[in-house]
Parts: sequence; structure tokens; C-alpha cells
Amino acid sequence: MPRIVAATIAEHRRIQRKAIMDAARELLAETGRAPSLAEVGKRAGLPRSTVYEYVRSRDDLLAAVVADVFPDWASSIRDAIESAPTPGEKIWAYVASNVAFFAGAEQTIARALGSVVDPAVLRGPMQEFHTALQEPLRRALGDLGEAEPEIVADLIDAMLLSATKEIRARQRQSTRAEQDSVLAPVRRLLGPYLRLPDNPTATASAEG
Amino acid sequence: MPRIVAATIAEHRRIQRKAIMDAARELLAETGRAPSLAEVGKRAGLPRSTVYEYVRSRDDLLAAVVADVFPDWASSIRDAIESAPTPGEKIWAYVASNVAFFAGAEQTIARALGSVVDPAVLRGPMQEFHTALQEPLRRALGDLGEAEPEIVADLIDAMLLSATKEIRARQRQSTRAEQDSVLAPVRRLLGPYLRLPDNPTATASAEG
Repeated sequence: MPRIVAATIAEHRRIQRKAIMDAARELLAETGRAPSLAEVGKRAGLPRSTVYEYVRSRDDLLAAVVADVFPDWASSIRDAIESAPTPGEKIWAYVASNVAFFAGAEQTIARALGSVVDPAVLRGPMQEFHTALQEPLRRALGDLGEAEPEIVADLIDAMLLSATKEIRARQRQSTRAEQDSVLAPVRRLLGPYLRLPDNPTATASAEG
Repeated sequence: MPRIVAATIAEHRRIQRKAIMDAARELLAETGRAPSLAEVGKRAGLPRSTVYEYVRSRDDLLAAVVADVFPDWASSIRDAIESAPTPGEKIWAYVASNVAFFAGAEQTIARALGSVVDPAVLRGPMQEFHTALQEPLRRALGDLGEAEPEIVADLIDAMLLSATKEIRARQRQSTRAEQDSVLAPVRRLLGPYLRLPDNPTATASAEG
């Protein structure tokens, strides 16, 4: 088979697979339970026979979702950290994207996976997810001048878990306003340590 | 009975009771298990028959310890908070006395009580203990200018639990140096928010 055709077939398969995985995530987030392959096909606009070319069973589908979502989430949070300009802003980006994670579809999917997937299957990917996020957080803390970045990273995580207790327990996704009200006290507490501007809104209106 | 004699007898009984309770606490802290009334008498230097005048059984003794220790601990932490000069120093006193609590005999006694006393007996006094400490913490946060003292008090408690994880798990009491190394990162993180001096030791030596 000529290379160009192979590339096109590979690309076609990549797109089909992505449509299936996106549909599976959406259904998990909406319903909180594992979708059937027929439901996934319907949502993805693909015949069930095509879905079976990619995943052979519901368990297989869930394993594929687990394999995909944690690295995807980790890289989106890492991107938010990387693109912030100062160490303090990077640490704040870590905090804000964690709150967004707990407020959004990701948390609904993670909770659904937690209730339908064997805990042993989740343990490795969740551990890697945690490690993947700790690494840039600790680096930013070191760049901020913190002498014990690992301990302070744990302190920040403990605060995050306390601050997001209510939004994590919610059966629905949280609004932007709800996220902001979670973030406000955390920012007041951490802002001076991270050398963040006092309150971006207040500063803007004072200047404007 | 003349009032003066009654007062003397009451005082005598108060002293004996205190000796019994102190002995019970010491033995709990040393052994991590409930002492017998004979052991308590021996430690207090009182005949067992005298001990029986105050407590009728080991369960009775433990109930008396529970009734005493939590209010005692709460008032000693409250004293530390009250005697600090500024809102920031009061909040820091709360943090430092909690760490001292988790590092010291109190934690050993609390753990021993947790393993020998019916959890239902402990629930009320522990809840009151927590409430008694939250109240001055929240007041100091309000005086510091914090708009949501209750939420920030929870964030500080979450940090404290993370910071003291190791010393709480220890089977022995922690040294002063171990307490200081627990406090150092917490102080770096909270210090700017609480407007505490950067590092008291460094400042002192720079001035001296």
C-alpha cells in the first residue's frame, strides 16, 4: 500500500477512534454510568459494527477511556502552568485549573469511572496523573524560592481538597461563579506568598 | 460542719482527685492503654480504696479523663491564642499550639483514648474541643480583615493536618526540633498573609 494511502487510512482511523472516545466521555459525564457500545455509536454517528473495530466490549471501552483521559487532563493542566509567566502565577494556574477540574465534566467523568471501573485499573493512571501535576508545581515552588517544595506542594493540595469539598460532592457541574467563590479565599491566603497582585479586579477598576 | 473545715475537705478532695486524674493521663500517655485503678493508685501514691472513692471502675476513670482533658487542652490552646498581641500572631499561636498538641503527650493520650473508649463517648467532647478552638481562630481571622473567616479557618486546618501527618502517626512524642521543622514551611506559606516577620531568628541575628 503506498505510504500516502496508509497515512490517510491511519488518519481516518485516528479520527474515528477519537469520535468514539469523545462520545464515551460525553455519555459518562452526562449519565454518570458506563454507556453501551450501541449508545456510543449512536452519539458518535457511527454504526455499532464500526465501534466494534475499536473496542470489543464495554470494559474494553472503559479501559480505553481511562488510558486516554488522565494523560489528557494532565497535559491540559500542565499547559496552563507552563503558559503562566511567573513562578507565583504558575502555582496559581495549578490551583485554578485544579478547581476547574473539580468543577467540570472531568470530575463527573472521574467519579463515573470510579464507580464503574475496577479500582485496580484506575490506581496506576490516577497515580501518574497526580505525579504529572506535582512535578511542575514543585518546580514552580522551587523557582519561587521555596526551600521545601514537596512539603509546600502537599500543603497546597490539602488546601485545595478542603476548598473544593462542596464542588466535588455536587452531582452537577459547578458554574463559573461557584468556581470563583471557591478560588477567592484561597487567593487571599496564597496571594501574598505567591506575590500575586492583591485582587486583579480591584486593581483594574482602581486603574481604569 | 464549720465552713472552714468544709472548704478544707473540699480542697483536699480536689487535690486527691487531681492526683488521680494526672496519674491516669500519665499512664495513658506512657503506655497507650487504659491503666487499672491499682496502677493509678500506685502512680498517684494513694491506696486503691481511696481511688475507689473517686472512680468506681476503669470505664468510669476513662470517662472522667475524657471529661477533663478536652476542656483542659482547649483552654491551654485558647490561652496561647489570647496572649498573642496581633491577629496574625494569634492565628500563628493557633497553628503552633496545634502542632505542639500533635507532637506531645496530648496526642498520645488522645490516641490511647481513641483505642480504649467507645467512640460515642468521645464524639461530643472532641466536637466541643474543635468548636472551642475554631471560635478564637475565626475571630482572629476576622480581626485580620479576612472576609470569610470560616472558610479560611478550614483551609488552615487542612494545612495543619497535612503538615502534622508524620508526627501524628508517630508512636513517640516529637522533639522540639521536629516540631520546628513541621512549622517552618507552614510559616513561610502563611507568614505573608498573617503579616508575620519573615523569619524571627534571622531578624534577631541581623539586628544583634
